[in-house]
Amino acid sequence: MQITFLGTSSGVPTRSRNVSSIALRLPQRAEVWLLDCGEGTQHQVLHSEIKISQITRIFITHMHGDHIFGLMGLLASCGLAGNPNRIDIYGPPGLDDYLRACGRYSQTHFSYPIKVHTVQPGLLFEDEEFRVRCGPLKHRVPAFGYRIEEKDRPGHFDADQAAALGIPFGPLYGKLKRGEQITLPDGRKVQGRDLCGPTQVGRKLAYCTDTIYCDEAVELAAGVDVLIHEATFAHQDAALAYQRLHSTSTMAAQVALAAQVQQLIMTHFSPRYAPGNALELGDLLAEARAIFPHTEMAYDFLTYEISRH
Amino acid sequence: MQITFLGTSSGVPTRSRNVSSIALRLPQRAEVWLLDCGEGTQHQVLHSEIKISQITRIFITHMHGDHIFGLMGLLASCGLAGNPNRIDIYGPPGLDDYLRACGRYSQTHFSYPIKVHTVQPGLLFEDEEFRVRCGPLKHRVPAFGYRIEEKDRPGHFDADQAAALGIPFGPLYGKLKRGEQITLPDGRKVQGRDLCGPTQVGRKLAYCTDTIYCDEAVELAAGVDVLIHEATFAHQDAALAYQRLHSTSTMAAQVALAAQVQQLIMTHFSPRYAPGNALELGDLLAEARAIFPHTEMAYDFLTYEISRH
Ligand SMILES: [Zn+2]
Ligand SMILES: [Zn+2]
Repeated sequence: MQITFLGTSSGVPTRSRNVSSIALRLPQRAEVWLLDCGEGTQHQVLHSEIKISQITRIFITHMHGDHIFGLMGLLASCGLAGNPNRIDIYGPPGLDDYLRACGRYSQTHFSYPIKVHTVQPGLLFEDEEFRVRCGPLKHRVPAFGYRIEEKDRPGHFDADQAAALGIPFGPLYGKLKRGEQITLPDGRKVQGRDLCGPTQVGRKLAYCTDTIYCDEAVELAAGVDVLIHEATFAHQDAALAYQRLHSTSTMAAQVALAAQVQQLIMTHFSPRYAPGNALELGDLLAEARAIFPHTEMAYDFLTYEISRH
Repeated sequence: MQITFLGTSSGVPTRSRNVSSIALRLPQRAEVWLLDCGEGTQHQVLHSEIKISQITRIFITHMHGDHIFGLMGLLASCGLAGNPNRIDIYGPPGLDDYLRACGRYSQTHFSYPIKVHTVQPGLLFEDEEFRVRCGPLKHRVPAFGYRIEEKDRPGHFDADQAAALGIPFGPLYGKLKRGEQITLPDGRKVQGRDLCGPTQVGRKLAYCTDTIYCDEAVELAAGVDVLIHEATFAHQDAALAYQRLHSTSTMAAQVALAAQVQQLIMTHFSPRYAPGNALELGDLLAEARAIFPHTEMAYDFLTYEISRH
């Protein structure tokens, strides 16, 4: 699973950071899932290694413009880039109506099916390999965090060793692969777990934006490999964070600590911390690391590989 | 008057060309007018010499996404860049409703007044220095071309020569400045035009997109200094142009020729003519120049100064 940050600025684009979007490349299939789609996301895709034609699912956190104004253009371009079979979009109430209104006024007709799912807290997608849940966050408008989990896979079955033990090929193999105990015709007992490598634990990612510190974010992110959490403001500007219901870097770190995640990546930074200002992004990083050392800051086109452990 | 092309691709952005937008800098005042506003226009502004805070008027040709999807984001950023007094937007029916719908779903509240004017063919704006007209074009949806004219100004009045002729300072000066004849107390007659330099002819610009060849474009562009006309297709792909109601480079040149303009600048090119394809943009240029030699091709960030003649 590979994360590419396509936009890491809050509210407005700057010369070096676009507004919110993250691409998630799935290793199992030639598919890309998008998290948020601010204006210019399709332009960022053009300048990245992501193939726009591989986008199959888009998860939208909330209806603010810096998270959705790139959606119509991207969906229109997806059609021209080689028709996808279908794109599934998940987001808050209003998203479907917004897209319909934009389509109507601009007379945009998509050449492939688009299905908009209005999310509610809980499980919203599951297939044989992945599970996606969302949870409510605390912002000025309804906002949802997403948790994307790869399912655990049984460990590698050692077929050579099974053959050496004289186990006949057939239904017994299935039992052993599932870790069960079998009894051979000659009375020997064999433990499946002795022939299986360790379970391949699925990788887990949580994305929490836009939000002030909230327990729901901690719950959603519990134990993930990577938590991507917004950090619009520095701790010193906490008053602004409370006023606008955004997080400080300190709050992001507190969520990471409470959720016992492996890695925190902060994003969605206010342009006020651009280089040359009294407070810079390095200060936000230091604040967060004082609480949660395994913290990094996102920047546009940062690609981060979530590896198995 | 200075034109800066912010986007010169039709339909979708490419790595080197954004979708439609043109900035017009007015020499008389610290003001920028925009023509169209495709997705990513505000990003292009950030990478240009244009100050987003100077935008006061925006003219929209038609409601297709590649001409309007950057409007909401740009308007939101205008507010944050230092509140403009007000922005006037001119465009086809539906534009006002579109902006209201986007504002409602995204809960975008502008910190300054925005006035949307639904245009009809004819004069749509006039002040002491400028006049803007629009005319109907021929596209799949209602589309309007714009003609922006600087008004003529009387030539420079030679006050020194008037003083040397012994003309008393006062109301006679006004008459002379307007080019009239006066009679002095001693009976001498003086022609105002002898004391005035040549009239400063105002500069004129026409912008015609999206459209197939039409007489209304010729009429709108009559005698302008610069005609910016779309040339989505090469002459060889005229069948596509007729089907989609776009222009070939040949049609753009024919409009320029019939309208007797000084300079044609083509824009809004299909990505199919990118370098390396069977037909390239150089071919479109050659086709147009065969008909109208004073033709140039726009590219992103091309700045063109319309000089007085
Ligand atoms: Zn945001
Ligand atoms: Zn167009």
